[in-house]
Amino acid sequence: MIRLIEDNDPIAFEKLKLLYPHAGNAFIIGITGSPGVGKSTLIDALITQFRKLDFTVAVIAVDPTSPFSGGAILGDRLRMQRHATDKKVFIRSMASRGQKGGLSRATKDAVIVFEAMGYEIIIIETVGAGQGEFDIASLAHSTGIVTIPGTGDGIQAVKAGILETGDIFIVNKSDKPDADASVLQLDMMIDMRNSSQTDWTPRVVKTIAQNGTGVKELANAFLSHFDFMKENHLIEQKKNAMEKSYFDSLLQDLALEKLLLLMKNSEEYKGILQKIQAGVMDPLSAAELVVNNLMVTSNLKVRN
Amino acid sequence: MIRLIEDNDPIAFEKLKLLYPHAGNAFIIGITGSPGVGKSTLIDALITQFRKLDFTVAVIAVDPTSPFSGGAILGDRLRMQRHATDKKVFIRSMASRGQKGGLSRATKDAVIVFEAMGYEIIIIETVGAGQGEFDIASLAHSTGIVTIPGTGDGIQAVKAGILETGDIFIVNKSDKPDADASVLQLDMMIDMRNSSQTDWTPRVVKTIAQNGTGVKELANAFLSHFDFMKENHLIEQKKNAMEKSYFDSLLQDLALEKLLLLMKNSEEYKGILQKIQAGVMDPLSAAELVVNNLMVTSNLKVRN
Repeated sequence: MIRLIEDNDPIAFEKLKLLYPHAGNAFIIGITGSPGVGKSTLIDALITQFRKLDFTVAVIAVDPTSPFSGGAILGDRLRMQRHATDKKVFIRSMASRGQKGGLSRATKDAVIVFEAMGYEIIIIETVGAGQGEFDIASLAHSTGIVTIPGTGDGIQAVKAGILETGDIFIVNKSDKPDADASVLQLDMMIDMRNSSQTDWTPRVVKTIAQNGTGVKELANAFLSHFDFMKENHLIEQKKNAMEKSYFDSLLQDLALEKLLLLMKNSEEYKGILQKIQAGVMDPLSAAELVVNNLMVTSNLKVRN
Repeated sequence: MIRLIEDNDPIAFEKLKLLYPHAGNAFIIGITGSPGVGKSTLIDALITQFRKLDFTVAVIAVDPTSPFSGGAILGDRLRMQRHATDKKVFIRSMASRGQKGGLSRATKDAVIVFEAMGYEIIIIETVGAGQGEFDIASLAHSTGIVTIPGTGDGIQAVKAGILETGDIFIVNKSDKPDADASVLQLDMMIDMRNSSQTDWTPRVVKTIAQNGTGVKELANAFLSHFDFMKENHLIEQKKNAMEKSYFDSLLQDLALEKLLLLMKNSEEYKGILQKIQAGVMDPLSAAELVVNNLMVTSNLKVRN
């Protein structure tokens, strides 16, 4: 099924419709951070901890730079290989293969599959964390941002607007110098966030993924966040936001497909393209002209 | 100007219209490959070589995993820093900031700026190489794929369909064991490609970027490819394909913008979203319903 999703197979779309009513019950955790901070080792340790607590776990390792850098992900998967014989753990990497809607939608599609299969915790690992093409916060209930001491990642996170999307901040490799300074810095930045009293206050957790130090506390921090969301009725809000974001991306893909098909088969498109290639018109003005002349109406009537 | 592009500033769009007629004269080289193969060091050496040949050079380092992994790119730029005082060299990194149309369009926008500024060679560096969200072959005249011995990147390239997009294959760090085996493997794969007699036969070049070995040959290989394209009238085809691809991405962005604005302000959209969030309808069927009921027509008449 994941392969069908990666391959843009229309069968995947039909099957997802059938699976969707069975999804929506997992706790979805996003883990993100720069290359080299130890995300895979950390997730490997988290799997062990969640298994101790008797949760079933699925991991989706997302590589926005693929297909070419597939090597890195292969390495990552090897690192988690000791869980390969555990039937209650499923690890899958997803690469970009030009999916419609990109990796973000393909990842959401995969989440639906894993949820319908009954996995209780789904971890999405990605290097991408931006407001850009891959928005982890629209896919996960709880987002963990992994940093290491002394890299200034904290400051960068603020600049990139990522601080707002982090629920748990992880200072990994915390046996390195400056670990406490990193924690302090993150704590200060969290204090400066604009937030209402009903909001979750992000936590900072120190870990050494390599030997498991702090991983129990990290797993508990994620579970506390999930409990907090449920107790404060934030989970419905989050669910609505996630569904809206998925619907929007589907709308976007399908509408675009229809639109491009119409446009590209039209005489107008061919005529305009000729003018561009003859140097008579620049592509920016041409695109504006075409789109300004588009008329879009809807026949849809929604009954309540 | 690049900052305006990164920030999605509408002023950038208007300025690009004015710059476009002055673009189209540079030789655009794409350099891609997995993390760690030495792309930045190689480009640093290529700049030196192209400067010896008295070309002006602009480099656009594209990071599809940003904003968070900005660190890597900063490091890359530092590696090329020795060219910072050379006024005929311009190095700029571009990160994903949720640009409309994504990084691919933003990179093309930046290329137009550098072309209008008169740079003769523009090098685009990226880790992404796929048919996916970032398609280097639609941005560059000549694409160099960097590999290192013994990683099996060659095989992966074939699987990922990247072999088709490579014009020059570079075996970097060729002082490592298995370098000749890698060359042989790549040569064999190139021989197996389906190609007509008028096609360019990709070359394989061994380099040691660290000490400059093979970089002169690499620069010459790129320039030979450019000459070959010009002599065989392939350059017009390439230019047409690049312009079409840019126009399509602009059309896509603008049409999508218009469509989403119309849809999201409609009662139908709100009604359908409510049904999804109430669990009455799945998002996939809902998106299909909305899009099937869209009517798109064009008022545009193109005079020849």
